[in-house]
Amino acid sequence: MPTLPQGLTAAAFAAAVAKFTAALGAERVVTSDEDVALYRDAYSPLWNEPGELVASAAVVPDSVEHVQAIVRIANEHRVPLYPIATGKNLGYGGSAPNLSGSVIVDMKRMNRILEVDESRGFALVEPGVSYFDIYRHIQERGLKLWIDCPDPGWGSLVGNALDHGVGYTFGPFRDHFGSHCGMEVVLPSGEIMRTGMGALPGAKSWQEYRYGFGPYVDGLFGQGNFGIVTKMGFWLMPEPEAYRSGVVLVPRRRDLVALVDQVNYLEHASLIGQPNYGSPLQRLVANEPELRAMLEKPGGPSDDELDRFAASRSQAVWQCELQFYGPERTIAGNWEYAKERLAAAIPGARFEDRESYRFPLSAQDKEGVPHKVALGIPNMAIFSIGARSDFNPNPRDGHLWFAPVIPKSGEAVLDCQRVLGEVYRELGMGGGAFLQTPATWHFRTFIMLVGFSVSRTDPAVNQRSLANFRRVVEVAAEHGWGEYRSPPVMADEIMSTYSFNDHVLRRFCETLKDAADPNGIIAAGRGGIWPRYLRERQP
Amino acid sequence: MPTLPQGLTAAAFAAAVAKFTAALGAERVVTSDEDVALYRDAYSPLWNEPGELVASAAVVPDSVEHVQAIVRIANEHRVPLYPIATGKNLGYGGSAPNLSGSVIVDMKRMNRILEVDESRGFALVEPGVSYFDIYRHIQERGLKLWIDCPDPGWGSLVGNALDHGVGYTFGPFRDHFGSHCGMEVVLPSGEIMRTGMGALPGAKSWQEYRYGFGPYVDGLFGQGNFGIVTKMGFWLMPEPEAYRSGVVLVPRRRDLVALVDQVNYLEHASLIGQPNYGSPLQRLVANEPELRAMLEKPGGPSDDELDRFAASRSQAVWQCELQFYGPERTIAGNWEYAKERLAAAIPGARFEDRESYRFPLSAQDKEGVPHKVALGIPNMAIFSIGARSDFNPNPRDGHLWFAPVIPKSGEAVLDCQRVLGEVYRELGMGGGAFLQTPATWHFRTFIMLVGFSVSRTDPAVNQRSLANFRRVVEVAAEHGWGEYRSPPVMADEIMSTYSFNDHVLRRFCETLKDAADPNGIIAAGRGGIWPRYLRERQP
Repeated sequence: MPTLPQGLTAAAFAAAVAKFTAALGAERVVTSDEDVALYRDAYSPLWNEPGELVASAAVVPDSVEHVQAIVRIANEHRVPLYPIATGKNLGYGGSAPNLSGSVIVDMKRMNRILEVDESRGFALVEPGVSYFDIYRHIQERGLKLWIDCPDPGWGSLVGNALDHGVGYTFGPFRDHFGSHCGMEVVLPSGEIMRTGMGALPGAKSWQEYRYGFGPYVDGLFGQGNFGIVTKMGFWLMPEPEAYRSGVVLVPRRRDLVALVDQVNYLEHASLIGQPNYGSPLQRLVANEPELRAMLEKPGGPSDDELDRFAASRSQAVWQCELQFYGPERTIAGNWEYAKERLAAAIPGARFEDRESYRFPLSAQDKEGVPHKVALGIPNMAIFSIGARSDFNPNPRDGHLWFAPVIPKSGEAVLDCQRVLGEVYRELGMGGGAFLQTPATWHFRTFIMLVGFSVSRTDPAVNQRSLANFRRVVEVAAEHGWGEYRSPPVMADEIMSTYSFNDHVLRRFCETLKDAADPNGIIAAGRGGIWPRYLRERQP
Repeated sequence: MPTLPQGLTAAAFAAAVAKFTAALGAERVVTSDEDVALYRDAYSPLWNEPGELVASAAVVPDSVEHVQAIVRIANEHRVPLYPIATGKNLGYGGSAPNLSGSVIVDMKRMNRILEVDESRGFALVEPGVSYFDIYRHIQERGLKLWIDCPDPGWGSLVGNALDHGVGYTFGPFRDHFGSHCGMEVVLPSGEIMRTGMGALPGAKSWQEYRYGFGPYVDGLFGQGNFGIVTKMGFWLMPEPEAYRSGVVLVPRRRDLVALVDQVNYLEHASLIGQPNYGSPLQRLVANEPELRAMLEKPGGPSDDELDRFAASRSQAVWQCELQFYGPERTIAGNWEYAKERLAAAIPGARFEDRESYRFPLSAQDKEGVPHKVALGIPNMAIFSIGARSDFNPNPRDGHLWFAPVIPKSGEAVLDCQRVLGEVYRELGMGGGAFLQTPATWHFRTFIMLVGFSVSRTDPAVNQRSLANFRRVVEVAAEHGWGEYRSPPVMADEIMSTYSFNDHVLRRFCETLKDAADPNGIIAAGRGGIWPRYLRERQP
């Protein structure tokens, strides 16, 4: 017998499964233990433990009509549904629900690419379309368009955007929700709604103007549970003539402040794509006990200590890779302009040329590109790194991420390093925080990634990771830094930090949720929002 | 006695006014006929007629606490409120409500600029802050930041963004709602909510990361009536080193297709700012009966006819001004690149250099700039044009706009010209449609502006304008083109065209509205959304 959620009887569940089967056909309803287990979260920190978040069954619609039938049956029997796109959101719950016993609505067979327009620069796709699928489609047709993809290419454009996922190329394209335009949604009532211009029958600009007329409702469907998205439009980037990258290296810790100021200017003026910060000292940590001791002592190194150490090893303290996309002459000129600005602002700054490409690339050229996602080429190379974390060099069975949003300034990074350094020391997580640089997927803010490993075999690892995760969430919130995205197991605690005025944002969303989904059947708990009948069960 | 809305008794209104006065002070409550009349829509097409949309009173809060008090009193007495920012939205209702008898909540005294961050590139402002205010603030401090402003500079950043207003500079900055980040809102309950990162107490990135955690609700407050926005953040553009513009002219009507394709590429690749399309033949209409006859005959000129006429006068059929922002070498290179692409794609294309500036400009230099808004300089020059319309050269007392969203393609423009040409002929509005080019404020779509004049003295002008407006809305909707913004008097009819699946988008919004604002006190009718108790009264 599968796990069933509070309030759902075995009889009601069986009746719903029978109706799902009648409506969709037996081959589209998944009920065997073995098959349902495929929807477990491969990176669950509660693996095989009583609290593991698991599905009771899955349904695999082929069409919007199937989705409507599923939603209507779920309403009739009060069956909680949990829609997934391709279900590849590892580290953020995979294909498992926020509420154990939910029926997974697996959208992978709805994988049509409905339109790609080269000149107007958009695509309209179903949730089962992966980054590989859309890339192949564009390449086969020779369209001069790029996609922006996250690390693993097997994910869904729709699923990633709805989780506020991010990528690697130019400007606002990296914000996958922000570069969507127009949705089709099956509402909790079972009705089909189209948003933006799509609400106008026969609309000609559904993928070109997002707001349509009146209130703009799309935001409710990202990290939310107001419906099941069945189509979504995305703006695509025109293929540039060329790409080049270069690195700026700065000698002193405090140079980070001027470095970020200058790089912000370049990025906000659309002169560069994603900037990649780092510290050349990271490479020395393993073999330099002096550096390690400095990083691990309470409070970490002083500015002087770090600067002197770096100078003694002829290393810069920080670096930033700048990426340029555009006509060859433009990007050569922009790199010169960047060097002039940076050299004037930061005494001792050094510059190194890196890669350079002209498009389109041959298949062989593509093979040789070290960081393919920066050119919008989906791939799976990320998994060679395992549970990527500077503090966890030995790949584990999986990982969770915490990624607090911090200001886009060097001062904020230095401050966050000190705070994380303290909490890492408290939790025995090492001294890496003092060389940690921000992730820069977001166009207008920084995040500081913290990874926690999970284990399939050692529950103690998981317990420690969850306890550490909770502690870091708490410390970050005390400093005004909040998470942008969460694995289901942490969603309530993350949402609890967004507590301004007695959690009014959450209460406002709950009010809307109860009105739109009175039976609470869609993705209960997603984004920290629970339907009325389940709110009592929250921690 | 003021006009009162359905369901509000004179006694309840008087009780509410007394409480407003007690809470805010008499000087912040406006009730005399003479003063309330200042909130009339100066461009109303129902001027002095029984259906004119007028307020019953106004309240002028100084603080968020005042706004909360107003909302609580309004709930108690079921008084409909209509918030305005600076109330300068002429052509879109000015400071008048959608529901006659509403009490205006005039936010003009809440005009603090709370923060401007140069490096991170944002501002946080109250609704009373005008484009002039923020510009002056930035100039006085010598910050290297630009604003993006609409034609008249007296409007409010918050008000304009909430109406999905648009501007003139670079890329997504022109989308004023799209470039906002973070809101503070007084909800219909009177509670203060902060959105995005602002929901985290002491948040450090409120103006840098818009989604926060969970559902993203900001969209409900634009063209909507889910609360009164009291603070709002905006991303600002870094001051570029230089600006230049150039014009491309193309000889044949069908060249518009390739022209738009090429200009789309340049714009979507962030190589140009707003492109400005036009037809050099427009200048000839007044003095060339042959051209006029061609434009006014049923179906308009054939491609050949128009091309031959243009050639005979040594004129291009279309032109497009390209605007470049960035380092001097970059923009010179981008203009060369644009010329190469356009020359290769369009035989016979010609190019002309136009303006060129290096920043910052002196006060004297600024005076000489013909199109100041393209450089983010707010001004009031637009009013020298009067009721700007090619078909209404004699300024009238005001105007209304209809601006259907059409695809960003040359084919769509040519198609829309034919359709508008037909309807203009039917309505006696002249033959100008065949030379009409799209407005390009929106980054990813075109709109085709249609102006209707209003009169303070001749109700027949207004009646004809409204009838013509309705007819154009209807014809546009039949072709899949919908309006992005509306004067209150047309809001219901515009929203009615967004009718996909029995108006499910409107019904979804109504469901949310009733839950969030059970007494229907906030901006009834805004964006075509009415509270439950008033829905029966809709046309």
